[in-house]
Amino acid sequence: MSDDLAVRLGIQELLSAYADCIDEDRLKEWPEFFVEDCRYLITDRESHEAGLRHGVIYCASKGMLVDRVTSLRRVLMFEAHRYRHVTGPTRILGVTDGIAEARTNFIAVRIMHSGETSLFATGRYLDRIDVSGDRFRFVERLVVLDSQKIDTLLVIPL
Amino acid sequence: MSDDLAVRLGIQELLSAYADCIDEDRLKEWPEFFVEDCRYLITDRESHEAGLRHGVIYCASKGMLVDRVTSLRRVLMFEAHRYRHVTGPTRILGVTDGIAEARTNFIAVRIMHSGETSLFATGRYLDRIDVSGDRFRFVERLVVLDSQKIDTLLVIPL
Amino acid sequence: MSDDLAVRLGIQELLSAYADCIDEDRLKEWPEFFVEDCRYLITDRESHEAGLRHGVIYCASKGMLVDRVTSLRRVLMFEAHRYRHVTGPTRILGVTDGIAEARTNFIAVRIMHSGETSLFATGRYLDRIDVSGDRFRFVERLVVLDSQKIDTLLVIPL
Repeated sequence: MSDDLAVRLGIQELLSAYADCIDEDRLKEWPEFFVEDCRYLITDRESHEAGLRHGVIYCASKGMLVDRVTSLRRVLMFEAHRYRHVTGPTRILGVTDGIAEARTNFIAVRIMHSGETSLFATGRYLDRIDVSGDRFRFVERLVVLDSQKIDTLLVIPL
Repeated sequence: MSDDLAVRLGIQELLSAYADCIDEDRLKEWPEFFVEDCRYLITDRESHEAGLRHGVIYCASKGMLVDRVTSLRRVLMFEAHRYRHVTGPTRILGVTDGIAEARTNFIAVRIMHSGETSLFATGRYLDRIDVSGDRFRFVERLVVLDSQKIDTLLVIPL
Repeated sequence: MSDDLAVRLGIQELLSAYADCIDEDRLKEWPEFFVEDCRYLITDRESHEAGLRHGVIYCASKGMLVDRVTSLRRVLMFEAHRYRHVTGPTRILGVTDGIAEARTNFIAVRIMHSGETSLFATGRYLDRIDVSGDRFRFVERLVVLDSQKIDTLLVIPL
């Protein structure tokens, strides 16, 4: 198998494992998908295009991701809802100095505790991924939502 | 092309052909995607996690799949509705003794005869696939729905 | 990397770049995804199965695609809405004389200017793709919608 292909499959696996981690409510493992010095941001298209660097959720280090999960566990006494991610094919724009740049469209469906299912959010993952080691990890994951009208129930990462 | 890659592409083709078979209403061909001694189960996440082995549809052999399709044809005098499956990337967890274990997220949209379109179901395919022969086939396909609140109109397999 | 695989990845890239072009509202670039002597048609399943060759949008040459985009720009004084495409895996049915035949399921979600998000359309891309040159292009793209009940707001290509 060529190196190119191994990187492609590795990135695919990282993205799928990430979605599973959230969809299966194993949030404690979520920070492990990132390097120490990382950035995670959920924003919307207009803010992103305007170059703004704030968002609904913003974490500038792995420590902040861990804090996020810990406080989530305190707030959510019981499982509020679940997501189901379906992602389209991943475009890999290039690999430079062991960092791959990738983009992936996604749909996130929300399943309430009552069983009610609805289209929750759509958008793109804009990722920078460390592919130099054995286990690939996100250096940066920007979740750019298509709509600003996001439910305030957005407490779980996407 | 490496063996690994050939298996990966073959599994992908099996899953896509399966979805097409259902979406194009060629249900008579549906049992052909399974080995003789197979298991097909549509269940929900909570039942699955509780280890329950029943579900909305349960078939423990290819013969039961054939029966299912035959009785469906008797009940459905005309085409009631259609599905459109969109699946995310497939994770292949491993291959042991010619059996691959794979997982795939899906969204199924339902299109009524009137043209009305709605999000019908989301969930995961948990598959065990015989990859030892020329044509890959399901040994087991568990369709784990995210919601228990499934429309009773679920008569067509997913 | 084998030739087969290179064609597969190239087709995947073409389809993803096409979806991005529309979703990011860069419609001026849209005709560049087609060869000069091309065909682009948005139709519905029943018309397609009946062998009808008309549709909501029909273009029989690249020139017609350019005209379409130009008139669109005149009609749409401001951005009316956006789409988000999520596509499933692409089935490649074969390659003959440098033309690949491919099929891909899709979901298109529409995001209104107000932020309102809804399931807009589902269906299949039935493609014939020129894979003989360095840059792959569509010879024919049939967009077969699952429902006839398509919003008359369909002015942007899918």
